[in-house]
Amino acid sequence: MIDTSLRINRDRLEHSIHELAVYGLNGQGGLDRTAFTPAELEARVWLMAALADGGFGVRVDGAANIWGRRDGEHLELPAIVCGSHIDTVPNGGKYDGALGVLMALEILRTLNDKGIVTRHPFELVSFSAEEPNPFGLSTFGSRAVTGKLTLEQISEAKNVEGKPLTEALEEAGGSLKGLGHGPISKEEVGAFVEVHIEQGKRLIGRGIPVGVVTAITGIYREEVTVCGEANHAGTTLMEDRCDALTAAAEMILAAEDICRTFPAAEVVGTVGQLRLLPNAPNIIPAEVGFLAEFRGETEAQLHAVVNEWSDRFQLLGQRRRAAVTRKLILNQAPSPMDRTVIEAMERMAGMLEIPSLRLGSMAGHDAAHLASVTRSGMLFVPSIDGKSHCPEEESRMDDIEHTANVLLYTLLDLDIILDTKG
Amino acid sequence: MIDTSLRINRDRLEHSIHELAVYGLNGQGGLDRTAFTPAELEARVWLMAALADGGFGVRVDGAANIWGRRDGEHLELPAIVCGSHIDTVPNGGKYDGALGVLMALEILRTLNDKGIVTRHPFELVSFSAEEPNPFGLSTFGSRAVTGKLTLEQISEAKNVEGKPLTEALEEAGGSLKGLGHGPISKEEVGAFVEVHIEQGKRLIGRGIPVGVVTAITGIYREEVTVCGEANHAGTTLMEDRCDALTAAAEMILAAEDICRTFPAAEVVGTVGQLRLLPNAPNIIPAEVGFLAEFRGETEAQLHAVVNEWSDRFQLLGQRRRAAVTRKLILNQAPSPMDRTVIEAMERMAGMLEIPSLRLGSMAGHDAAHLASVTRSGMLFVPSIDGKSHCPEEESRMDDIEHTANVLLYTLLDLDIILDTKG
Repeated sequence: MIDTSLRINRDRLEHSIHELAVYGLNGQGGLDRTAFTPAELEARVWLMAALADGGFGVRVDGAANIWGRRDGEHLELPAIVCGSHIDTVPNGGKYDGALGVLMALEILRTLNDKGIVTRHPFELVSFSAEEPNPFGLSTFGSRAVTGKLTLEQISEAKNVEGKPLTEALEEAGGSLKGLGHGPISKEEVGAFVEVHIEQGKRLIGRGIPVGVVTAITGIYREEVTVCGEANHAGTTLMEDRCDALTAAAEMILAAEDICRTFPAAEVVGTVGQLRLLPNAPNIIPAEVGFLAEFRGETEAQLHAVVNEWSDRFQLLGQRRRAAVTRKLILNQAPSPMDRTVIEAMERMAGMLEIPSLRLGSMAGHDAAHLASVTRSGMLFVPSIDGKSHCPEEESRMDDIEHTANVLLYTLLDLDIILDTKG
Repeated sequence: MIDTSLRINRDRLEHSIHELAVYGLNGQGGLDRTAFTPAELEARVWLMAALADGGFGVRVDGAANIWGRRDGEHLELPAIVCGSHIDTVPNGGKYDGALGVLMALEILRTLNDKGIVTRHPFELVSFSAEEPNPFGLSTFGSRAVTGKLTLEQISEAKNVEGKPLTEALEEAGGSLKGLGHGPISKEEVGAFVEVHIEQGKRLIGRGIPVGVVTAITGIYREEVTVCGEANHAGTTLMEDRCDALTAAAEMILAAEDICRTFPAAEVVGTVGQLRLLPNAPNIIPAEVGFLAEFRGETEAQLHAVVNEWSDRFQLLGQRRRAAVTRKLILNQAPSPMDRTVIEAMERMAGMLEIPSLRLGSMAGHDAAHLASVTRSGMLFVPSIDGKSHCPEEESRMDDIEHTANVLLYTLLDLDIILDTKG
């Protein structure tokens, strides 16, 4: 039986958020803490010191992921793991990633406070280089330990100055050799739970403090090139034109329309990057290249969206007499979260009388990769105004406290229900 | 009475086209003959030598425009002038501009061949720097001598290396001082006729060898900035977005639609230049800037188009909740060609039994500026496939010959009908 009076220490958690937020702080109030930069290395040192201070076992794996362990009663059981990442985007905020790691730290500390003995070992993890970074490999740490990156890919990665990723890894305590023993297994990590800010407005808009993530979004990205005919913008009649930009404009609006009218609200589509040739005011555009991206929570959704996009595309290309080429850039399937973990989260939120909402992630997360090797789940904390990746990124302490308590009880519930026999 | 057996010398004209086309010839078969470059200065020398060889008076004015004069019977009468320009765009063709100058040369030579005595002096003119050039002043020569540029503008113009336009002018035989006596008057130039390639498909598509230009197109250009909200392309629901690119796409399609459905075929609209911020695949576009251009043959047309564009704009901006700012870049009124000249052209084409078609210029030309100081007219020669500003730019010798003969008779007709008393 769980002691239902147990609660995390809100003030300590809030304090740790401010403590970590000094690393990489810039003049605009944002954090510049890209993976493997001096500021990020300092943040790592802070985290490892905090873990050691709590008496937790600290380990850095081959990918330079930081693990903090609190042993359980049964040494042979797999760990119940919780965490996220502490690197940021340039001029990012103090919650994205960091909140998940600090909440895991707070859980371990709370268990210590009360001298609670769990069946499983409980572990914190801080994954390396989740955000885009100079080595071109985002979600690096979680991909590296779940077999999603080959040793060749890792050993060949370099930043623009030609510095190898392996060198950066070693500076952070990792090593290519340490990655040699293959992906982590369910026997090592029995469950993984990540807490992250939502980065959208679904929770904040409804006033719900906890999001239970059902799936990490699938992302489909393609590069489209529309070839028209460059021509004099004055002497070419409208009927004689083959304008690559107006053709592309119809395609961009088709992508928007498909997603707007799709029955599931969590299907989104974006054209965020575009280039135009020759890009002169008095020449009809000859070529437009753009990146179209679609996201959905299930394979069926993504499939349906991409199919409709393909159909519209063909019609538009024919009507416009434009030559269109499409190149697949990314086709990352959605990762459903584990049913047992989701149900534990909802059961515990219910027990604590904290409102929760099921929702898709819409963004990519480390949990997507962990889901391929073990039971995984995610909790979202509301983002004020839906903002993220900027200095204004913030979450309310009330919501953070609620989510941390749901996390605490979820982990304790998983500790009870997992690996029981008969 | 005109001797109706008179014809220009087709072979000599064709030969001169090839002679002039060696200046600036590049490896791709195109011409690099930007104003005031060594290649263009060589072409000027060739032209002046050809004029001197024919016994014509050669003069270079303050704007370095080259004039070639064949005196008439009445020295006090204004000149009947004909010409165009010999500079080209980078990697341009051998017809744009050059054809009009060489046809004027051929007219003077033909008159010499037959010893024809005209009432008015006949002059050839080759205007400086009609095409875009490093000094940032296109149609420079015709603007400079029609009072469209101030002496300050001319003396302040520099290329990117900081070389003053005045220095380039002096190298070509011009001088700021020579421009000091003001714009040319109707007493100096009684009429101006320019021949140019059409640069479109209207004539070639109909198999008509001569175009009679009714007006030099008006050009309206504005810079539009659409401000949306940058946001995460994954976590922002479609309904929560304010996407600057999809808003701009609707505006671009509106510009196209307005011109496509406009009752006059010679109204065209183009968005040829566009920039996107932040231009990242996973960020909803925050800002799009683009240049929208409309052209029409009458002020009423341009006015109607711009009005409809403004109306649609307002509706689109409201519906999209995007902040739109518009900045006028250019508002150049159409220049109607002279009725007397147009009628002379059509009468002479009819007499010669050469089919002709009235059409608007759709492109800008030196004749637009001459029209503000004297009677002006333009003839178009069909462009094969409508191509121009490229090495493939070409016109058929049959069409060139027909147009040259219409030009010859038009000038002789104007010689009879202009400046007669009683």
